[in-house]
Amino acid sequence: MDEAAFIAALRALAPDPAARGLDDDVAVIALGGEHLVLTHDMMVEGVHWLPAQDPADVAWKLVATNLSDLAAKGAAPLGVLLGYGLGGGEERFLAGLAQALAAFDVPLLGGDTVRRAGPAAHGLTALGRATHCPVPTRGGARPGDALWVTGTLGDAMLGFEALREGHAGKAGARDTTRFTRPVPRLAEGRALAPLVGAMMDVSDGLLLDATRMARASGVTLAIDSAACPLPPDLPVARRREALAWGDDYELLFTLPAGTLPPCPATRIGVVQPAGPVPLLLDGACPQGRLGYQHGE
Amino acid sequence: MDEAAFIAALRALAPDPAARGLDDDVAVIALGGEHLVLTHDMMVEGVHWLPAQDPADVAWKLVATNLSDLAAKGAAPLGVLLGYGLGGGEERFLAGLAQALAAFDVPLLGGDTVRRAGPAAHGLTALGRATHCPVPTRGGARPGDALWVTGTLGDAMLGFEALREGHAGKAGARDTTRFTRPVPRLAEGRALAPLVGAMMDVSDGLLLDATRMARASGVTLAIDSAACPLPPDLPVARRREALAWGDDYELLFTLPAGTLPPCPATRIGVVQPAGPVPLLLDGACPQGRLGYQHGE
Repeated sequence: MDEAAFIAALRALAPDPAARGLDDDVAVIALGGEHLVLTHDMMVEGVHWLPAQDPADVAWKLVATNLSDLAAKGAAPLGVLLGYGLGGGEERFLAGLAQALAAFDVPLLGGDTVRRAGPAAHGLTALGRATHCPVPTRGGARPGDALWVTGTLGDAMLGFEALREGHAGKAGARDTTRFTRPVPRLAEGRALAPLVGAMMDVSDGLLLDATRMARASGVTLAIDSAACPLPPDLPVARRREALAWGDDYELLFTLPAGTLPPCPATRIGVVQPAGPVPLLLDGACPQGRLGYQHGE
Repeated sequence: MDEAAFIAALRALAPDPAARGLDDDVAVIALGGEHLVLTHDMMVEGVHWLPAQDPADVAWKLVATNLSDLAAKGAAPLGVLLGYGLGGGEERFLAGLAQALAAFDVPLLGGDTVRRAGPAAHGLTALGRATHCPVPTRGGARPGDALWVTGTLGDAMLGFEALREGHAGKAGARDTTRFTRPVPRLAEGRALAPLVGAMMDVSDGLLLDATRMARASGVTLAIDSAACPLPPDLPVARRREALAWGDDYELLFTLPAGTLPPCPATRIGVVQPAGPVPLLLDGACPQGRLGYQHGE
């Protein structure tokens, strides 16, 4: 059974419409006048990180990527639970975990440790409290809205390449921390939540994530590649590639025309009525790879 | 770094006193007038299940063991999040997952799937709402209380042995479902929560779990082995072994003397003031193995 079929079958087991949490979103449940936001991500050695990478960075990223899902809901983190596969690197993992928990001011609530054989695999569950209702979804983009993104895209790709090629830490080398130590946009997510139409984080590539937002919203998103905030030293020939690279953990969101975001962000496109394709890049349907597809 | 040292270091990262959730308990956090109960368990092929076991049973047990942690807090399940390592057996896993979710009336809220190499490893987070405050802990046993346990102990051990030896399903063979398909004591836990001093589930062996309860409560627990509800066909020579075998998922709890439990249960001992050892079995400190120790 391939991954897409498995996920579809899992979704069929989750009849609650809030249960959009399989692989690409988070779950939202109402409790005691609050809205809880829940997400769980796993990371596997060789898939989500290079075997040579510092386990401290792995721990940081495990926390950061889950908190990025909360950020996209405007949620304030309440805590995390860790599932850890023992098998080496524990001291460094602990160091990175402590740094991430302190940096994002989130408590470790509990979890489990298990012995493992084979590649390392860890899971993390993050729990948050929504700060604004309705909780933003990727389905709220409306024709006429503008499409925005926080920060920059493509730095994680360049950081990964520098790391893979062993340039990290060398004189004049590129900063790899956008790949190794992403920072979830928690404050931005909370500031944006009351204002946005749709919101999600960019974890699998702008073009793929924008396609998902367009499909969920029943619209077409038209992106202007020249407007996209890419690294200034990125060769022009690689701009398209950067738009399909993940791990940026920026927030992609829509605002009504004329509304300015309350945090630094770049306007990269507009929301149009649903056309023949969900996504237009510079006026045409983008060809080729859009981003990281689970099951690729 | 060994597992015990790693867990101790993780606990040091979790300054919240509610964060007892690492390996042997669940986390409780207050939110919006409710108390949330959270637990996360991982299961690994070859450690938590036999490679030849039906993945449907693995899925069932992953749900059941997490819900057993909620049961021990008197919590009503709100949902689960699944972390699934793809690599085979998905159809059967889905079948067992669907059965467990339906049997325990708990929704799948979300999760993540990852590709894996090596032995299968899956994680599950269960979220519940406490039905009684204060939420029971393992630290509430008081001298003079009686010690009780629901159901029977040792059937999971015998079921595991029948399964390992290939007897399952044969004519006259022992029922293996107490090992493969444990049923969390959710209704019992809710009924008991307002009455108990201390409560926990028996997952790692009665003697070990009782020792943990005694230490957390600052008391000595005195257990009468002849009173323990063991399978009638268990050889007398194996009674001590059964008291140190895990996977029973019964509830161990204390009640004030004279209070009877609102559900079927067996009185197996008394709570004494703290003596030189936390646990007495038939009046003496038990020698040898007490149960499944993480890191063994």
